[in-house]
Amino acid sequence: MIIPKNIHHKEPRITLVGAGPGDPELITMKGANALKTADVVLYDALVNEGVLDYANPAAIKVYVGKRSGEHSYGQDAINKLMIDYAINYGHVVRLKGGDPFVFGRGYEELDFAAGYSIPVQVVPGLSSSISVPGLQQIPVTHRGLSESFWVVTGTTASGKISNDLYEATRSKATVVVLMGLGKLKEIVKLFQNEGKGRLPVAAIQSGSTEHEKLAIGTVDTIVEVVKEKGVQAPALLIFGEVVSLHPSFQPIRDFYEALKEEL
Amino acid sequence: MIIPKNIHHKEPRITLVGAGPGDPELITMKGANALKTADVVLYDALVNEGVLDYANPAAIKVYVGKRSGEHSYGQDAINKLMIDYAINYGHVVRLKGGDPFVFGRGYEELDFAAGYSIPVQVVPGLSSSISVPGLQQIPVTHRGLSESFWVVTGTTASGKISNDLYEATRSKATVVVLMGLGKLKEIVKLFQNEGKGRLPVAAIQSGSTEHEKLAIGTVDTIVEVVKEKGVQAPALLIFGEVVSLHPSFQPIRDFYEALKEEL
Repeated sequence: MIIPKNIHHKEPRITLVGAGPGDPELITMKGANALKTADVVLYDALVNEGVLDYANPAAIKVYVGKRSGEHSYGQDAINKLMIDYAINYGHVVRLKGGDPFVFGRGYEELDFAAGYSIPVQVVPGLSSSISVPGLQQIPVTHRGLSESFWVVTGTTASGKISNDLYEATRSKATVVVLMGLGKLKEIVKLFQNEGKGRLPVAAIQSGSTEHEKLAIGTVDTIVEVVKEKGVQAPALLIFGEVVSLHPSFQPIRDFYEALKEEL
Repeated sequence: MIIPKNIHHKEPRITLVGAGPGDPELITMKGANALKTADVVLYDALVNEGVLDYANPAAIKVYVGKRSGEHSYGQDAINKLMIDYAINYGHVVRLKGGDPFVFGRGYEELDFAAGYSIPVQVVPGLSSSISVPGLQQIPVTHRGLSESFWVVTGTTASGKISNDLYEATRSKATVVVLMGLGKLKEIVKLFQNEGKGRLPVAAIQSGSTEHEKLAIGTVDTIVEVVKEKGVQAPALLIFGEVVSLHPSFQPIRDFYEALKEEL
């Protein structure tokens, strides 16, 4: 006798859930509730495995992330797995780090599922772009310092720096760069070309987790501070006067002021 | 006998919590846990009162929001209340709509508390800027359509349109405008001045709640569609090609293509 895998004949459905920046407590109630009813969880490299503890213990958990060097699953393979599991097992939670739509390719997965007429629900997650600076008490906007913030990827599909980043360096917005640490020197150069060598900058690795590392400096010094503090990818960069509100910026400000007095 | 209000002599502390866009399930686990241990909750107009159900039933709940026309509490009064409650009752949760640092004046409250040496913890919330479009399955970034997104306030402290918004209309970023519906005509004019009359736009009121209203059109038509759909402030605006991914945009695309064929 052949037992069909979907023994309860559950209706296939997919919930695209943002897991937030890392700390498992920073998932939404709705995201955790979706995990409780999941038959299958497909999760990415950027998801903290502690988040999986919210899932039904009987759920199948499949790691589909890429870790540096590995290319276990391409986007097409993930799309197909997701559909296959939904048809065979019922409720698939597709769990992504941060928010699914902030450089998360979430829409590609939605679109693929729509092609199979499988209903998809979206549960947003905390994007690291806002929450990771916020946890360091660096506000992306602050009266008198910043009336907007601009979130850009440091690594586009083509591997080049986004043209949007060139424009962002010329703006007055707080500029948040995701996946940009590997191109830090080039990005710094762009800001220097705009005469912004003294603009405050922070680089934050593994924000919200016990492995969090922070480097604070200016455009001119950040490459060195990142090295000194051992901040590694994946990390977030935040460029803007709002970074000067962080207590670690005080000695830098004092240094520049002393310099001014000497001159 | 005078009974001191802080009868348990609890240490004063403040947790600044983002409640998310509206749906009470869209608060984080950490935010809900903070509410459970709150002695006092100070909450804003943009917070859905359903979120208060997570709080300890014995907690004092104080509404400090401004509703249009009322000016019950200024920022200074809120700051002072927060300190006063922390000193007298212990753990104050300061609950704000969305994320505390996205035009939420959260840093001003942090800073004020620091002046009294009261410890403050931050629990980020889902900013409507990303999550409200996301719930409508409009991704703020999408390969081939948008490599960045720029979040701007429509109403600055001075009541004028932010200079950053002028710059944003010239960029290729997805532009999200918070608190901009009252200035929609002026904002539309800025995009038209850049020759972007056919850029897709969505206006979303009360995103994530049962009262959600959506208007989808182009820069040239959005004022009319907003009126037709009865979308009212507070609402979020999203300008960018990513809006064309929403199913409601399909008839608009068909219309423009038919127009092209006729010519």
